[in-house]
Amino acid sequence: MSAPVQPIITLLTDFGSRDTYVGQMQGAILTTAPQARLVDLTHELPPGDILAGGLDWLDSIAAFPPGTIHLGVVDPGVGSERRAIVAEIGLWRFVCPDNGLLTGVLRSHPLHRAVEIREPGFWRTEVSSVFHGRDIFGPVAAHLAAGIDLGEFGPAISTPLVEIDLPEPTNETDVIQGCVLTSDRFGNLRTNIPATLLSRRQATSTKWTTEIGDVKINGVVRCFSDSPVGQLCALIGSHGQLEIAVNQGNAQELLHAVRGTTVTVRPN
Amino acid sequence: MSAPVQPIITLLTDFGSRDTYVGQMQGAILTTAPQARLVDLTHELPPGDILAGGLDWLDSIAAFPPGTIHLGVVDPGVGSERRAIVAEIGLWRFVCPDNGLLTGVLRSHPLHRAVEIREPGFWRTEVSSVFHGRDIFGPVAAHLAAGIDLGEFGPAISTPLVEIDLPEPTNETDVIQGCVLTSDRFGNLRTNIPATLLSRRQATSTKWTTEIGDVKINGVVRCFSDSPVGQLCALIGSHGQLEIAVNQGNAQELLHAVRGTTVTVRPN
Amino acid sequence: MSAPVQPIITLLTDFGSRDTYVGQMQGAILTTAPQARLVDLTHELPPGDILAGGLDWLDSIAAFPPGTIHLGVVDPGVGSERRAIVAEIGLWRFVCPDNGLLTGVLRSHPLHRAVEIREPGFWRTEVSSVFHGRDIFGPVAAHLAAGIDLGEFGPAISTPLVEIDLPEPTNETDVIQGCVLTSDRFGNLRTNIPATLLSRRQATSTKWTTEIGDVKINGVVRCFSDSPVGQLCALIGSHGQLEIAVNQGNAQELLHAVRGTTVTVRPN
Repeated sequence: MSAPVQPIITLLTDFGSRDTYVGQMQGAILTTAPQARLVDLTHELPPGDILAGGLDWLDSIAAFPPGTIHLGVVDPGVGSERRAIVAEIGLWRFVCPDNGLLTGVLRSHPLHRAVEIREPGFWRTEVSSVFHGRDIFGPVAAHLAAGIDLGEFGPAISTPLVEIDLPEPTNETDVIQGCVLTSDRFGNLRTNIPATLLSRRQATSTKWTTEIGDVKINGVVRCFSDSPVGQLCALIGSHGQLEIAVNQGNAQELLHAVRGTTVTVRPN
Repeated sequence: MSAPVQPIITLLTDFGSRDTYVGQMQGAILTTAPQARLVDLTHELPPGDILAGGLDWLDSIAAFPPGTIHLGVVDPGVGSERRAIVAEIGLWRFVCPDNGLLTGVLRSHPLHRAVEIREPGFWRTEVSSVFHGRDIFGPVAAHLAAGIDLGEFGPAISTPLVEIDLPEPTNETDVIQGCVLTSDRFGNLRTNIPATLLSRRQATSTKWTTEIGDVKINGVVRCFSDSPVGQLCALIGSHGQLEIAVNQGNAQELLHAVRGTTVTVRPN
Repeated sequence: MSAPVQPIITLLTDFGSRDTYVGQMQGAILTTAPQARLVDLTHELPPGDILAGGLDWLDSIAAFPPGTIHLGVVDPGVGSERRAIVAEIGLWRFVCPDNGLLTGVLRSHPLHRAVEIREPGFWRTEVSSVFHGRDIFGPVAAHLAAGIDLGEFGPAISTPLVEIDLPEPTNETDVIQGCVLTSDRFGNLRTNIPATLLSRRQATSTKWTTEIGDVKINGVVRCFSDSPVGQLCALIGSHGQLEIAVNQGNAQELLHAVRGTTVTVRPN
């Protein structure tokens, strides 16, 4: 792949914004690739939450042009023996620790090529054992943006990449059973139930009842404001999965649901 | 208006920074306008707070060059019948839902031209009914930055744009009565009392007493450090309105004032 | 120094991200220097915390190329008689209030040249007495990025720049006594004890015991995952100082340590 004029590098971490870790990583990137366009996906992942990070990638990568470099550092094993990798998956390139962060992406897009990052010539001269984002991952992403071929960073990977368990919905006798995956800033609860499971019967309709805890929600609305203010509703989120929300309110605070809370969808 | 080399697009939303909504919208923009300069005004507006968003615009837009595109998505009515618009107001261009977000801007700067966004050829191919920021507003702002004329996005708007109530101060017999509008990160309380109302008698002076709840503040100082550490003071904020603050402290925590709390200013 | 094609300006403030202060400052910069690359170091410094801001600079500046402009606005004395300065220190340039923010940087890198910002021709036309970030510091950094020589901004400074007290460790009879400086997003406690003090005896080893409150931590590990999950450990942080952490946990919440909490390191 030849280097575009202003390659995009997206950043996904659990570094937070109160410290300068993100800024330091960006400095390391721009030192090598001054033309790179940097886009923050999020830095507020719960510390070490690989599942949430992987879902965020799954939601976000398709909003970016082919060739975009997605750099992800959620890395509780930094400095240990976990592999560091560069991979071409779908239309994009990924730089991250091999710890399961790519699980969802790998299940939705074809893996073309992956290498283990082993060649220190592309790293910062001094490598801290607790900050590979700045000293290894960032510089490698920058060299990739500057046109270096994948193969230069280290040997091809022949064993499978690490995958983590993703909770999957079950679907028996028309009853779909899934669970809450995450809650967003608005308190909207994202489930693992894809719209495609509902669409055989037309997703947005009155044909479904969604149950969570003691609560039953009739129908699936098209947008928040199709539901009365303050009332629970079910709808298809922008990620294409069933979401439980309150129009101008906060479903998470109302239901106290957490990751894993059961959500059942039944035909009426 | 011809496209500048690196047009600026500012972003104002209530999306927060813990999710990837902002990043996805930026990806959609850069896909169409790779040269655009993106500047975040804020993404931490209280969910659905159209009044606060409009005030933020009023404070911010003049810091940007003529032609800047201000993209605002505070959109509790996403997916409903509310209009989506592009407008030329003052020296700038605005892309947003027609829900009152522009109220303050419209009262301070002349509206030159406005169109309703109706032409799907400029949108993302698939439009989620809950994420027009990524799928409609972002792409339209990007096409605008790339040089597309306003008129291409849809029909001219002939009916008035939606405006919301902005609390206005009253000014009778030299006593000015206003209220708190917002509190900032430092706990400084911004009121709706403009410096111009005080300036006939010289704003920064000992000639005024500001009352909020049981508290009386003598005089209007020029800067925080003109007041003793830890003591309440009144001054003219960078937005040009009366502000109540504590030098190296937090007036909001001290006074528990909220939007609408009465503030009275009397001549001594 | 000639102007690079895309000079980098880093931003360090206590403005927070919920208001538009950072965006307004960026707008003021881009109005003058449309080609500048802006990198946020952090805007979440505790209000007025000059010590924390200075540490953040000390950690971050070396990740950026020579000539980078570091703009810092932690400025409780805004509008008062405190000086505003531009300085060349080490390989970089700094624009900030002269209030001690540069203390750590000055002790680690040589001061080449400093001027006081006095020439209003480079400022915004109207200057608010409470927002010099937007009206003075930002525009000066932008003009610097655009190639204006330091000397144009005002007279050379001949008196020493303001320095604040930085807590220094003591080191007697092999016992090192220091303290906690800051806690990061992960709850990792950064101390003022540099790795160099330990390295005479090989920093990463079992040769040291770290004491904080009632707790004793045996040894210094190389990375978080060298310690069992949930257990306190000591290691050398990416800033090169001793850090107290919990693998996949939060040392700050566990120990309730604050700035100044004593940390003692003894040889075994």
